[in-house]
Amino acid sequence: MTKGEGSLTALSNALADFARRRDWEQFHSPKNLSMALIAEAAELVEHFQWLTEEQSKTLDADKKDAVAMEMADILIYLVRTAERLDIDLIDSAWRKIEINEKRYPAEKVHGDARRASEYDKD
Amino acid sequence: MTKGEGSLTALSNALADFARRRDWEQFHSPKNLSMALIAEAAELVEHFQWLTEEQSKTLDADKKDAVAMEMADILIYLVRTAERLDIDLIDSAWRKIEINEKRYPAEKVHGDARRASEYDKD
Amino acid sequence: MTKGEGSLTALSNALADFARRRDWEQFHSPKNLSMALIAEAAELVEHFQWLTEEQSKTLDADKKDAVAMEMADILIYLVRTAERLDIDLIDSAWRKIEINEKRYPAEKVHGDARRASEYDKD
Amino acid sequence: MTKGEGSLTALSNALADFARRRDWEQFHSPKNLSMALIAEAAELVEHFQWLTEEQSKTLDADKKDAVAMEMADILIYLVRTAERLDIDLIDSAWRKIEINEKRYPAEKVHGDARRASEYDKD
Repeated sequence: MTKGEGSLTALSNALADFARRRDWEQFHSPKNLSMALIAEAAELVEHFQWLTEEQSKTLDADKKDAVAMEMADILIYLVRTAERLDIDLIDSAWRKIEINEKRYPAEKVHGDARRASEYDKD
Repeated sequence: MTKGEGSLTALSNALADFARRRDWEQFHSPKNLSMALIAEAAELVEHFQWLTEEQSKTLDADKKDAVAMEMADILIYLVRTAERLDIDLIDSAWRKIEINEKRYPAEKVHGDARRASEYDKD
Repeated sequence: MTKGEGSLTALSNALADFARRRDWEQFHSPKNLSMALIAEAAELVEHFQWLTEEQSKTLDADKKDAVAMEMADILIYLVRTAERLDIDLIDSAWRKIEINEKRYPAEKVHGDARRASEYDKD
Repeated sequence: MTKGEGSLTALSNALADFARRRDWEQFHSPKNLSMALIAEAAELVEHFQWLTEEQSKTLDADKKDAVAMEMADILIYLVRTAERLDIDLIDSAWRKIEINEKRYPAEKVHGDARRASEYDKD
């Protein structure tokens, strides 16, 4: 990183500029962006669908790079949606972690990854 | 932000710690995490599926907060997958933006959002 | 339809045979098939993501055919998953319709498509 | 099946009637339906995300029933989208199987489930 580009803010500004220069803002409703985001998430899933869990941990360099580019696409649409809705992503993530800390107390869920809804039935 | 928590690195460290304290690392293969990520992306989509594009731009405070929490979940699983695969998300996003700058020259795609694959057919 | 192939059963048998002849049954766990299914669902979404709702109703012949092929892929993986889990899809759909009839009484939800969870909060 | 309801046509008619009686046709653009469909596909994925492949093959009765209801939802939105676009799902699936027979010759892909795009690179 040579240009102080480590933050999501710099990324968000670059993406807004990218869209503006192409007159693409008209397409970037949160509804449409959520569709684009899930389509990119599916491309990530597609890389892993026929791999075993173990294989998914040890990708060769080409595959890892392709996976990194799909993840970049997900981040790009996520940041873009956040900008459109004026949502602070990092702050939201910290808030969600706090919620999860309470929802899944470490001592109660240790080694057990059942879905939240299934816990709630307990 | 009071604890220098603006970066994805701090978030990633907190999430690794969260998983470790619950002995959940065993479930966090990239394959499984990609599934969790797309499930969260779908919850975002679900918020918008019956809204018009216009309605999706002007959410009331409750809906906006619910949307922010879904987006937090997406970021959380994205950061977690990146950590598992040793991928630098921010760096990857900047690389992808450069690729997109060349793939979609502003003067060529102005006001036109057809899919990349459809351009390629031109 | 000239070969009595109108049913999902005939389709399911053909798909099982297709997988067997390729020795692909080993990859067809319900977990993996659900990933393949959502990847195909995303390809459908991708066709519509930058279209308006109106445009999505009036596709030209080429686009309609491409959409039909994505929908075929979704049906294929859905039928394949059902076969692996010994689930009767058609019967399940009729059961779900009955549940929905009770969950969304016509007179109560007329013209209103809010999410089920939002109704439940009422 | 007691009412000759084995076909997708009967299902499609019942779903059109269901939407009409609720005045929900206004929300059922193909764009919106594709979003609802992928949201249901994600609920299927969610059931499997923390299971091993083996566990996903041997669901207990409750889980199997919950999975059947998610799959019913996917079929319902798929059939509904097909009706809106006047697409014959069963016919499309048979056409796609023919395409796949040529694309993946049994002798060439035996025991190998790499993605189509990766084959194409060979």
